[in-house]
Amino acid sequence: MSGWVVVAGLGPGKETLVTPEVTAAVDQATDIVGYIPYVARIAPREGLTLHASDNRVELDRACHALEMAAEGRRVVIVSSGDPGVFAMASALFEAYEAHPEFAEIEIRILPGITAMLAAAAAAGAPLGHDFCAINLSDNLKPFELVEHRLRHAARGDFAMAFYNPRSKSRPHQFTRVLEVLREECEPERLILFARAVSTPEQRINTVTLAEATPEMADMRTVVLVGNSTTRRVGPWVYTPRGVAP
Amino acid sequence: MSGWVVVAGLGPGKETLVTPEVTAAVDQATDIVGYIPYVARIAPREGLTLHASDNRVELDRACHALEMAAEGRRVVIVSSGDPGVFAMASALFEAYEAHPEFAEIEIRILPGITAMLAAAAAAGAPLGHDFCAINLSDNLKPFELVEHRLRHAARGDFAMAFYNPRSKSRPHQFTRVLEVLREECEPERLILFARAVSTPEQRINTVTLAEATPEMADMRTVVLVGNSTTRRVGPWVYTPRGVAP
Repeated sequence: MSGWVVVAGLGPGKETLVTPEVTAAVDQATDIVGYIPYVARIAPREGLTLHASDNRVELDRACHALEMAAEGRRVVIVSSGDPGVFAMASALFEAYEAHPEFAEIEIRILPGITAMLAAAAAAGAPLGHDFCAINLSDNLKPFELVEHRLRHAARGDFAMAFYNPRSKSRPHQFTRVLEVLREECEPERLILFARAVSTPEQRINTVTLAEATPEMADMRTVVLVGNSTTRRVGPWVYTPRGVAP
Repeated sequence: MSGWVVVAGLGPGKETLVTPEVTAAVDQATDIVGYIPYVARIAPREGLTLHASDNRVELDRACHALEMAAEGRRVVIVSSGDPGVFAMASALFEAYEAHPEFAEIEIRILPGITAMLAAAAAAGAPLGHDFCAINLSDNLKPFELVEHRLRHAARGDFAMAFYNPRSKSRPHQFTRVLEVLREECEPERLILFARAVSTPEQRINTVTLAEATPEMADMRTVVLVGNSTTRRVGPWVYTPRGVAP
């Protein structure tokens, strides 16, 4: 029995952002498991079975991967970005904890380029000082906790990155996020809407908090908010490394 | 004049974590600029000049890169991890802003695998929910700001990643960081000391906040602190995706 499960980050979209470590794991796999658009990024080949599944079935997908590994298969769960940032790694460990029969299975998590860092690189260096990453979706947590964390992030003068800012099922929440930011931050604060990062459709829209509207974000957008020192220089946005004492 | 400056993230150490995009930029370069141990990772070849410099000369290094690009050279500034996370990208834009004569130079920032995400992957998924990244060094900011951000991160129940936790010149500050965490968090909170991540010397030491001592960190360590729900399962540490409402 030489099965294993790897959770691999494919990065934000561009193939030259996939690490050689991830490419090697995919090359050794017998099975690929993941959300439909991520599995679609894997080239079919003989001996490789692709198991694409819908969104919001993360635990079922993780159990399926562990079951196949227990049968001796070499399974790669593909994630967008980095698997440890609002992606499949935590779901795998939730399934692993719930099923002690899989305790001996070999697991590896392979990091990837997460969307906020690809977006930051495309824009300049807006996360160049202390920052927070917040998942705005309330699928798995109460929205009050999102708001609580937003206020602490703003009061700590962290730069921020927001994942899953907006979806059809909860269009109103990002409106509330902008309201909270306006209560906590100055109107000149820079906010970046980075859509489809690293793909041919990439678009980065930098505005002030006063100018920001909810429609600037959708589910393919990662939103970056500067800290109080974040500035523009030419076409770039960056956060200086230092703060005067 | 076809010179350019690229700031490239080499990842935390393992060569299979360097993205193909970064490898291609290095292959096209005429000059490599960076801190001594990072430049040492680049294979010498004919037509490539290596400019290794000491730590704490980031602005000089950035100016040098822009000057060479203005002369038509193709310059890669190498950073460990991701260049936008406590690394050379912000320093480059500081130099760029201070020298309007370089306004027309082509600049690209190429993301990399940052230490906290490689450490998280090696440990499981401790950053699997909302988290903060904080540079504990007070080289460029007052330590009071570090303490202020620590308290907001803890009160927001963020997981945390600490870069540059400890150096010979400031051994006492990490002691203070642990004191602040003990004031804000429960003694059972998990804390991970990840040293030399992704290299053959990698070592990950997971303890509770009550057990943590300042000597567990050095300058090659990235420290991860779980949130209030972070848990162990077998050899792994992970933060569940959800929080009960």
